[in-house]
Formats: sequence, structure tokens, C-alpha cells
Amino acid sequence: MLCLGVEEFLVGECGHDPCGATWIVGFSGGPDSVVLLAVLTVLAPRLGAHLEAAHVDHGLRPESAAEAADAEAFCAAWNIPFHERRADVAGLARERGIGLEDAGRLARYAFFEELRGARPNAWTALGHQRDDLAEDQIMRLIRGTGWPGLGGMAALDPSRRILRPLLMTPRSDIEAFADALSLPVVRDPSNNDPAYRRNRVRNDILPRIAAENPRHGEAVARLWRQARIDEDFLEASLPDFPDPTALPMETLAGLHPALRLRLYRRALRACGPGQALAETLFSLDAAVAKRATGRVFQFPGGKTARIGRRALVFRLKSGGSGTRENRRSH
Amino acid sequence: MLCLGVEEFLVGECGHDPCGATWIVGFSGGPDSVVLLAVLTVLAPRLGAHLEAAHVDHGLRPESAAEAADAEAFCAAWNIPFHERRADVAGLARERGIGLEDAGRLARYAFFEELRGARPNAWTALGHQRDDLAEDQIMRLIRGTGWPGLGGMAALDPSRRILRPLLMTPRSDIEAFADALSLPVVRDPSNNDPAYRRNRVRNDILPRIAAENPRHGEAVARLWRQARIDEDFLEASLPDFPDPTALPMETLAGLHPALRLRLYRRALRACGPGQALAETLFSLDAAVAKRATGRVFQFPGGKTARIGRRALVFRLKSGGSGTRENRRSH
Repeated sequence: MLCLGVEEFLVGECGHDPCGATWIVGFSGGPDSVVLLAVLTVLAPRLGAHLEAAHVDHGLRPESAAEAADAEAFCAAWNIPFHERRADVAGLARERGIGLEDAGRLARYAFFEELRGARPNAWTALGHQRDDLAEDQIMRLIRGTGWPGLGGMAALDPSRRILRPLLMTPRSDIEAFADALSLPVVRDPSNNDPAYRRNRVRNDILPRIAAENPRHGEAVARLWRQARIDEDFLEASLPDFPDPTALPMETLAGLHPALRLRLYRRALRACGPGQALAETLFSLDAAVAKRATGRVFQFPGGKTARIGRRALVFRLKSGGSGTRENRRSH
Repeated sequence: MLCLGVEEFLVGECGHDPCGATWIVGFSGGPDSVVLLAVLTVLAPRLGAHLEAAHVDHGLRPESAAEAADAEAFCAAWNIPFHERRADVAGLARERGIGLEDAGRLARYAFFEELRGARPNAWTALGHQRDDLAEDQIMRLIRGTGWPGLGGMAALDPSRRILRPLLMTPRSDIEAFADALSLPVVRDPSNNDPAYRRNRVRNDILPRIAAENPRHGEAVARLWRQARIDEDFLEASLPDFPDPTALPMETLAGLHPALRLRLYRRALRACGPGQALAETLFSLDAAVAKRATGRVFQFPGGKTARIGRRALVFRLKSGGSGTRENRRSH
């Protein structure tokens, strides 16, 4: 049942073509990734895909080496190629001046990306499920993410070749599946540490929202689906230019502000990383509407927008240092 | 300062034409409505508008009659025409089988609407401010409202002729303004009663979100503005038909699902009250895409959609009883 639902979601709804693909599964040993690995083990031969598992030992807890050995044994028993990386997450966090959670994510994604890049037609498959999506929507609401980003993380991200096959599956179904198959799962105690915003959202905010609407999980899936449809529509509504960072003033004048604002975001993304402030985008748009030729707007990450007579031109100043983009941090 | 900001918002941003308008201010005596009345008292002569105050005595607390007398005295001192209605809110709640909060809202809106309808070019002005909007966004997230409804209540609702001039003003600015002018304000103790979802959102959920992002109020305003722009864009993107409840299959086939889904909602609204389930709309859209002629879908409030060869037709079944529409409940 779970397997067929995941196949219908991944292949039917998201349009993933599994035939001949290699799925690199991010395998922490927690319930989500164990169930993802089990489900994809069933689906891979059926759909003509190839499966491998990737485990990162964060070295943050004394038992992590033993957990890595268990993960390896699990994959050996299931005949799944296993890759392990020992990362000095604490050292990376110090070196970069970031939190342990961010450093762990960096280390994992770097390893997955390395494996994925070395194989033709490979995808990274991650175990995020519907309760993670609910958290992600709240995290984005807190950060002030607009639409359609507010709908939450992608289930199929072609630019980073990431799949999230369990994104419409409630955590309770995953736990029930793991129980029914007696799958061995590791519980990471840091998931309850209130030092992390994600855990505060999970443990303090989400239960209060779920108490108001016991069917909030369905609302989460609905919002996500609407965002996906709207994102596709909005993308299709945006005109294409030879240079996405040089927007002809003539064309802008004929567009609805809803599209102009999104063209600015696209142009800024094309210049490099750095989160744009919506307030600055509103001001820029007001200036564009007034054709305030010569005005220059500054954006984070050393980017600028200059209103010219013919075009609005976005540039990265030389020496402009990119800041990490929040939307990509999941 | 506050007055100029409100004028810029109401007239500049929302496009309200105040000249010759009558503003019926919903005046509870709480800080929001007192400050709204004070601000509009300053703006009315400046903008050529006329001001009246409307107070509903809910009869739920022993002190409510005294508060009504204070409200009347305040308006007399400021030379503002004052209208009062004593409502049996508890009786209305029993009679309709609804909560006290909903019954109070019904009684207030009925009174405001009565006054508004009796005057040419009149608008009801309500004291909702930015913190109410933040609550409204969370309430809508809990209910599972989609985009652009998720952005929150309107500042200018032409269909019901409602204005919310303080919608971009933080509660803290309103309190500071009331303090600075020593305005007499009433505190309704039921605002802290956890029996109401709104109060649980206000007192338990929102402070946790604000703790994660102290600038969440700005994010609220941003999301609201984006929703307003997108709503305008989406409305402008929808084709008009002679009968909004009969959608030509030929036209539907050429539209993006993002627009088709919104056309269904518009058709359902045109049939009468009743909240549509997004799941049913997704199923309907899948059937329309497959041209499943003859299929019929049921919607709350006794409404149906039938896929014909030429058109998708929405109808209210005779005897179909309308349920109150959630989106209108604020």
C-alpha cells in the first residue's frame, strides 16, 4: 500500500522517470530513511531503477560509529551498496561559524552530491515526510517566505536532482510501516533539543496547530499541491529574455506587478546567492513603474539593480560575497 | 504620523475614494476602535468624509451597559454621531446553535450593515490591525485556506463595503497612540479566554512564532501585500463567461490547472455559500482534463458540478441548504 502510494506520487504526480535512474538514498538510520530505503528497495526492480545508500557519521554522539556499522550491516543484509563518510561536523561548524544542524546538513549534502555526480542519471532521495513538510511550512511562515515558496520543499527538484518520495506520507504511516516490518530504527536524541528552531517548531508550535485542526496534515498536503500548480503557472507566465538579468523596460511596463516582482527574483537568483528583501523589491517595482531612470537598488550578496532607459539590469558587484540563501537551507 | 500612514495606506495603497463617503466606525471602546475613531476624526475633514460611530452592547458582561454609556459620552464629546444596538448575543447563539464569538460578530455586522445600507456611499470601518492580521493568517493556515486567501482579511472589501484602515498598523503603535492621547480604552476580558480559538492563537501560538522572528509583523504585512497583488493578477487572468456557472469545456482545455481550479471556486461561489473541499476540486479537475462527460461531483451546500459535452455546469440543487462560508467568518 505505502509502496504503491509512493510510486503513484513520485512517478504519476511528480513525473519522475525512474527507468535507468540511480537513487542515492540519504540513510541516517532513523525511521524515515529506513522506510524510504525499504520502499525504494521494493520499487527499484519494478521501475527499473538502481539503489544505493549513503550514510554520514556526524561524529557528534559516542554511539554514532556503532550506528554507522549497523547501517552498513542493514544494507549488506538487503544487498544495497553502502557508502559511508565520517564528517567532522563540529569542526565544520566552528570553521564556518554556523550551527551544528547547518553544518551537518552541509556535510550530508556534499557527500550525497559527490556520489550523485559520479553516476549517470542519478538522483539523491531524501526521507522527508508530510510532518517535515508541515514544519517546513511553519519555518517558512516564520521567515516570511512568499508564495509559492510558502507551500514548502520540493518533492522533485530538477536543479539539484533531489527526490522526496515520502513527502505526502504522514509520519504515523511511516512509523506503522517500520513497526509492521520490524525495521530497526535509530532515534536521534537531538531531535528533541529545544536549542534548534526546527525542534521548537516540531514540539511547541505544530502540536498546537494540530490540536486546532486534527486534519491539519491534509491541509499541509493541499497547500503544497496548490503551490506546485501555481509555481508552474507563474513560471509559464513569465516571459523569457536572452539575458535573464537584463529586463527590457518596455516589456516590464506591459506586465502585471505580480509577474514583474517574480522576474526581479529570477534575475537576482541568476546573479548568485543572497536572499532578496521583499520591501526592496516593492520599492524597486514602484521605481520601475515610474521609469525612474538611473536609480540603483542594493541587494544582499553584493547585487544591484539599475534602472536604465532600455532595460533594468541586475549585476553582481565585483567582490560581492554571496551569503547563503535561506530557501535552499533545508 | 499614524494618521498620515493610515491615509497613505487607505487612499494611496488600497485606492479608497474618501470624498463624500460616510464611514460607519465599529466602535467597541477597545484600543483598536478608539484609535481608529480618533484617526478617522482627524482624516475625515481633510479627505471630505463623514464619520459616525456604531456600538453594539453584547449584554454578556454586567459592565456592558456602562461601557455603552461611556462610548456614547466619548462620541458626544468628540461630536461624532453615535448609534447603539442592544443585542441578545447569548440568545442568538442558542437560537442558531453557534458560539458566542460568532453570534457577537453576526449581531455587530448586521447592525453595521443596517446603518451602512441606509446611507449613500457609506462604508463600514473596522479596527483590525496588523496583529489581528497575523492571527488571521494563522487561523487560515489552521483551516487549510489556499492562496491568495492565506494572505488574510481584506483592507478594502468592495463587495461588503468594509474598510480596515489600521490593517498595516502594529498593535504596539496603536497602544502608544492611545497612551499619548490619553484615550479611554476598555479591555474586554474575554480576549484572554482560552475557550476561543482566536485567543489560543493570539496567546499560545503567535508569541512562539514572534519569538522565532522578532520581525514577524513585517513578514505578515509582506505576505498580505503579495496576496493582494497575486489576487489581482489571478482575477485578471481568469476568462469571463456570460454565465460564470457554465464553463465551456473548450476554453477549460486550453487553460492552466491553476486557473481552472480558481474558475471552479468562482462558479461555486456564484451558486451560493458553502466551502468547497480542495480534494474534490482536484478530482473534478482530473475528470475535466480527461473529458469524463456525464460525471457529477457533489459540493457542500447542496451544489453539484456536471461535466457536459459542451460545458462544465455548476448548480445549486433545489432544497440545497447553504452552510456558512468560513472565509467570510471574520
